[in-house]
Amino acid sequence: MYNVQPGYGAPQTHHRAYSGGPPNYSQQQPAHGHRVHGGGYPAAGPPPGADPQLWSWFSAVDADRSGAISVTELQSALLNGNWTNFDLDTVKMLMSIFDTDRSGTIGFQEFVGLWKYIADWQNVFRHFDRDRSGSIDGRELSEALRSFGYNLSPSLLTLIEHKYASEPAVGYGPPPGITFDRFVRACVVVKTLTESFQRYDTRRDGWVTFNYEQFMTIVLSAP
Amino acid sequence: MYNVQPGYGAPQTHHRAYSGGPPNYSQQQPAHGHRVHGGGYPAAGPPPGADPQLWSWFSAVDADRSGAISVTELQSALLNGNWTNFDLDTVKMLMSIFDTDRSGTIGFQEFVGLWKYIADWQNVFRHFDRDRSGSIDGRELSEALRSFGYNLSPSLLTLIEHKYASEPAVGYGPPPGITFDRFVRACVVVKTLTESFQRYDTRRDGWVTFNYEQFMTIVLSAP
Repeated sequence: MYNVQPGYGAPQTHHRAYSGGPPNYSQQQPAHGHRVHGGGYPAAGPPPGADPQLWSWFSAVDADRSGAISVTELQSALLNGNWTNFDLDTVKMLMSIFDTDRSGTIGFQEFVGLWKYIADWQNVFRHFDRDRSGSIDGRELSEALRSFGYNLSPSLLTLIEHKYASEPAVGYGPPPGITFDRFVRACVVVKTLTESFQRYDTRRDGWVTFNYEQFMTIVLSAP
Repeated sequence: MYNVQPGYGAPQTHHRAYSGGPPNYSQQQPAHGHRVHGGGYPAAGPPPGADPQLWSWFSAVDADRSGAISVTELQSALLNGNWTNFDLDTVKMLMSIFDTDRSGTIGFQEFVGLWKYIADWQNVFRHFDRDRSGSIDGRELSEALRSFGYNLSPSLLTLIEHKYASEPAVGYGPPPGITFDRFVRACVVVKTLTESFQRYDTRRDGWVTFNYEQFMTIVLSAP
């Protein structure tokens, strides 16, 4: 509990409207035998036991048949409900989570984890997009974050709604809503920043002390 | 001066390699008589005394002839050296600086300020892109930030280089460089965060104390 505004930012363990919480990911080690680096080589066949559907999707995304998915290939393949491509910062965030061997590309085993993660987030997005508009508005955003255990103040929610909206607000009205890619990024940013804050809040009194280096490192490490 | 790593984050008043510093902007009030809201109306002529070249550019960007530039029109018109469009977060940052009447669009007088700001940043970018690669690498980035007075640690510079690179690094090598849009955003983010930190550092000893609400507000207010 934080002493200034009790409960803000503090994960709640009950009253979860959405029982799933924010999607987690399980990172799998890439099967090195099935990854072909560099262009020119035809892609190897699927690894033994691979899900045929996932292999088919992986091969479709791997446009140059290199056996691994580059950030450009990933960005071309990931579309929001309104047919716009995922923004670069979200694609880089996904790469940083799932490119576990830091090769700069996503191999098939890494893709399996990435695919599940995106599918889980799609379920979350659909669950909270109550009006089926294809984007998340301010009320839907606060319900989603509250269900994940982030009980943020109205002014913070407004900040997030504007920062991650796909267009700026016209006049003083609400912004036009948050597309899927930016919704995922907003949630991961809130999670990352809150966890960083809690790590420094060693007395658990809701106050932290940073020097400049620590402050900048925490902020610039968030997606 | 900060006590842990003297000079980091502290603006320097001498040894500026680039005498200009980061571009500033002068916001001008829009000439309301020359802004036409809503579609359908043909654009009015240029306001008296308007620079003909700037008016011509403004009219070209204003693709639907509404008399004002929307975020979509602005994003379509702004290109990096490699012909990619500016990313949305940079376009939103520019809109938030120059859309002074919060109309959600950029009128001609607002466009004059925006144009100068971008031209100034282009000069900065060209000045620091020593190898004329069209993108800013890690060494060029640290020279630029140092010349602006931000004396950041090597690990912070590496964080910024990776965060704002246009693609993730391959392996443990350097990332592929920062395009113009993301270079401007990176510099404005460093400036905004440093100024926020300094505002809270009332004792000027390099340490600040935040509660959760203050911390999140500062971070989420940066572009």
